[in-house]
Amino acid sequence: MRIGLKLKGLDYDYVGVDILGGEQHKPAYRAVNRQRLTPALDLGDGDVMTQSLAILEWLDETHPEPALLPGDARTRARIRAMAMVIACDVHPLNNARVGRALEAMDVSPVRRAKWTERWIIDGFQTLEPMIADHGRGFAFGDTPTLADCCLIPQIYSAGRLGVSLDPFPAIQAVAVHAAAHPAFIAAHPDLQPDAIHA
Amino acid sequence: MRIGLKLKGLDYDYVGVDILGGEQHKPAYRAVNRQRLTPALDLGDGDVMTQSLAILEWLDETHPEPALLPGDARTRARIRAMAMVIACDVHPLNNARVGRALEAMDVSPVRRAKWTERWIIDGFQTLEPMIADHGRGFAFGDTPTLADCCLIPQIYSAGRLGVSLDPFPAIQAVAVHAAAHPAFIAAHPDLQPDAIHA
Repeated sequence: MRIGLKLKGLDYDYVGVDILGGEQHKPAYRAVNRQRLTPALDLGDGDVMTQSLAILEWLDETHPEPALLPGDARTRARIRAMAMVIACDVHPLNNARVGRALEAMDVSPVRRAKWTERWIIDGFQTLEPMIADHGRGFAFGDTPTLADCCLIPQIYSAGRLGVSLDPFPAIQAVAVHAAAHPAFIAAHPDLQPDAIHA
Repeated sequence: MRIGLKLKGLDYDYVGVDILGGEQHKPAYRAVNRQRLTPALDLGDGDVMTQSLAILEWLDETHPEPALLPGDARTRARIRAMAMVIACDVHPLNNARVGRALEAMDVSPVRRAKWTERWIIDGFQTLEPMIADHGRGFAFGDTPTLADCCLIPQIYSAGRLGVSLDPFPAIQAVAVHAAAHPAFIAAHPDLQPDAIHA
């Protein structure tokens, strides 16, 4: 969502929520987002939007340039499908609440790490040929789209978890390209006010 | 996806894939969808679309009436967010491949059942107040939207698993309403060619 806002050149106040510390369950955040998941976008007029992809679609409808979903209906479907490989089939399986649920079922830390890695690799295996077919710098074509808004944060996460990108040269090329783009630089987790620096 | 096709009045050939029997891993289906997840929509001209929500968005762009995403940008964002509570935060955690992954980590059948139930209840708890606020027969307003295309199959699934809808009167009302709508009747799993009848 941060990447989308930066791509559109929109200003916003960033409020970090300490997920590992359980801050999303406290009344202050529940008042913003009943589902207690991040992110949420407070529009400042009493309306709060939830669900990353729904927020990104709204951004693209209300601020059409530069387009996160360029092209005809089939192209848009293909870009959305790439985004959803990450947003539906990788991210929800690896977020903090799922990790805690596995822990509560006595799944060992080694198995939990394998679980996380498995879904990332599975998603990247799906995306790799799609990007090889359609990417020209970014995941689809030569400008950032909804697909990159989902893929790039997942690449950061893979890096933190030590998942190798060696089997995924097309994804690696997108990572290199995004690392030089101002919106992706500005939205990088390490640059946020609540970043934890080792 | 079936509901969306029926709502748009579109004809299609249904090809069942036996997920529990592992048919999605066989070459015939892998040739259609590299990710080996269902559904996929074969357009018959060499192009195959994947990811339910991407297919539904494409349907709505190419066949605008009746609209699955009616209204202004904020309304559309709210409908998409409701759809994604199911499509991102419930369904991916409960599909067959996740069940097998839990089994492979020696998670007991009782705990696997609780896991499935937990994510459904969590999602329904999020949706219930959203539907209470915005639903008038269907999940958002008085016509079926993208939200119902995701919610109704999840309600069927909750029924099969014995998850009670008692705590969710707004969701129950939508279920009753959809049960009388021709598109939802025609798309019901029990009416598909590969339905298993007890």
